[in-house]
Amino acid sequence: MPTIQDVAKHAGVSVATVSRVLNNPSSVAELTRKKVEQSIRELDYSPNILGRNLRNAESKMLLVLLPKISNQFYLKIVEGIEEKALEYGYNILLCQTHSKLEREKVYFDLLKNQLAVGAITMDPTIDRQVLVNMAKRYPFVQCSEYVSSKNLPYVTIDSELAAYQVTKYLLKQGHQRIGLINVSESFLYARDRKKGYLRALKEFHIEPEEDWFYSANDVSLESGQQVMRSILNKKKDLTAVFAVSDMLAIGALKELNTRGIDVPNEMAVVGFDKIEFTSMTYPSLTTVAQPMYKMGEISVDMLIKKIQGEEVEDIILEHELIIREST
Amino acid sequence: MPTIQDVAKHAGVSVATVSRVLNNPSSVAELTRKKVEQSIRELDYSPNILGRNLRNAESKMLLVLLPKISNQFYLKIVEGIEEKALEYGYNILLCQTHSKLEREKVYFDLLKNQLAVGAITMDPTIDRQVLVNMAKRYPFVQCSEYVSSKNLPYVTIDSELAAYQVTKYLLKQGHQRIGLINVSESFLYARDRKKGYLRALKEFHIEPEEDWFYSANDVSLESGQQVMRSILNKKKDLTAVFAVSDMLAIGALKELNTRGIDVPNEMAVVGFDKIEFTSMTYPSLTTVAQPMYKMGEISVDMLIKKIQGEEVEDIILEHELIIREST
Repeated sequence: MPTIQDVAKHAGVSVATVSRVLNNPSSVAELTRKKVEQSIRELDYSPNILGRNLRNAESKMLLVLLPKISNQFYLKIVEGIEEKALEYGYNILLCQTHSKLEREKVYFDLLKNQLAVGAITMDPTIDRQVLVNMAKRYPFVQCSEYVSSKNLPYVTIDSELAAYQVTKYLLKQGHQRIGLINVSESFLYARDRKKGYLRALKEFHIEPEEDWFYSANDVSLESGQQVMRSILNKKKDLTAVFAVSDMLAIGALKELNTRGIDVPNEMAVVGFDKIEFTSMTYPSLTTVAQPMYKMGEISVDMLIKKIQGEEVEDIILEHELIIREST
Repeated sequence: MPTIQDVAKHAGVSVATVSRVLNNPSSVAELTRKKVEQSIRELDYSPNILGRNLRNAESKMLLVLLPKISNQFYLKIVEGIEEKALEYGYNILLCQTHSKLEREKVYFDLLKNQLAVGAITMDPTIDRQVLVNMAKRYPFVQCSEYVSSKNLPYVTIDSELAAYQVTKYLLKQGHQRIGLINVSESFLYARDRKKGYLRALKEFHIEPEEDWFYSANDVSLESGQQVMRSILNKKKDLTAVFAVSDMLAIGALKELNTRGIDVPNEMAVVGFDKIEFTSMTYPSLTTVAQPMYKMGEISVDMLIKKIQGEEVEDIILEHELIIREST
């Protein structure tokens, strides 16, 4: 990492001048100030803002990066992260990336400025290379969604296996025509859950048709409802749908209810995650339980180890198929 | 605000020494360092971390303080805040206070350190005096919940009126025994909604009984369910309940469904907020729609004005009673 000496050398000024630009810019002539600021930017220098000792005595922050908090899946994870972080004496900053690089970068600056000492990301696929570079310099842990890379440990579940089990369960119930409500395949979990779905179909010698596959614009109730609308407008012969997220499944249920279609008799529905609201829907939703709270706790344990410079292993947790009234 | 000169004077050292403690603490003798750190703490000094000019060229952050994101009420507000903030070129940091002062203080430090330039709080009642003091030095706006004080403008709805209208609606439907599921009366909205409820009962010459009043531990589905459990174990003759939050109402509905009690015929249920999930419950929930997205947008408009040093007026938005299947 560049030091204040490097900046001074680069700008051709004294260390004291750089220090004044940082602490009392109005005391420095404009031309000099701009030169120093330029060097700071070019070298990507982060001043040791409050001095390590002071900072340690104050608040220690961990970043938690996620696409959008409106996806209920993240709530229990964040709860687990926050409770565990507090045990270690850390507070968290919740950052919604909306899966956009420019938003993520703003939050990465908090690490560069040493305002946060590490990050848990649930949205690592925005720009793999940017993340890999950050993880070389700062402690990072991936939670749930992940990219494979050195320095980027993850805690997750086996999405492929879970989707395989869900689909097999529907097939064993006698369903022959099962739709898949997926999200963008830029997400690993979307690719893995599709793989599991296809593996089960193959095992039952069923060739999926092109219009069994649907992709939601985002993970929201509204998108789930929209997808079910287009399924019903297009295709009348599906007897079950597997949605890769409860939010989508609940939205789909709403559309089925609105149209007076009987669930599960005319159409069975399965979700994924086991968010709290899935027991409140009509009918209650069959889903895959992810150990969300535990996942959050473990990601903090992993991150603290990373911060302390220890080696950290990837962890894959157990999931569970929860059979309720929608199937 | 204290300057680096004040700190030097207070600690009896040179400005250069204070600067070294901030930027390179290991270069300063331990005793001196501790003395300076002590002065920094006592004076509540915040170094101008990256220099104003640099900061302006970088990310500008607004704090958003709320009790817990698991209360869905905040989601649409946060969405409105974030979209509007981005229009102005700001990013937001979501901070869960859990209504605890020690957590809130950690986030207030971000203002003191100039990492955030203003704050929107949805949890202003934690410690009135602390907040009032902060608002003297930093731009603050209150959203939804508020305390009355100069420098602390708010955007909200008229909770008393809304609760009065809800209760009157239930009374007109013929309900004579209406329970109130409230939260701690440390919250203004809890006191206001109770007032509105009482005003309607009075108008109908109904004297509420002691065990019509229930208080949930927090705003969650689980607490709503618990409260309904104790209502049903204790009191069989209520014909309607008004919950001051949809989260509580949805939890209450769950308990009624579990026990096979017919809603609305045996027990009518009304919530408050109109969160998205209220149209997904069985039966769908009668509730008061708050203009949450707009509330979020307006609070940013107000905050930007505050940051620019303009006068800001309080704003009270319209609400709407949404009658659905649960009544």
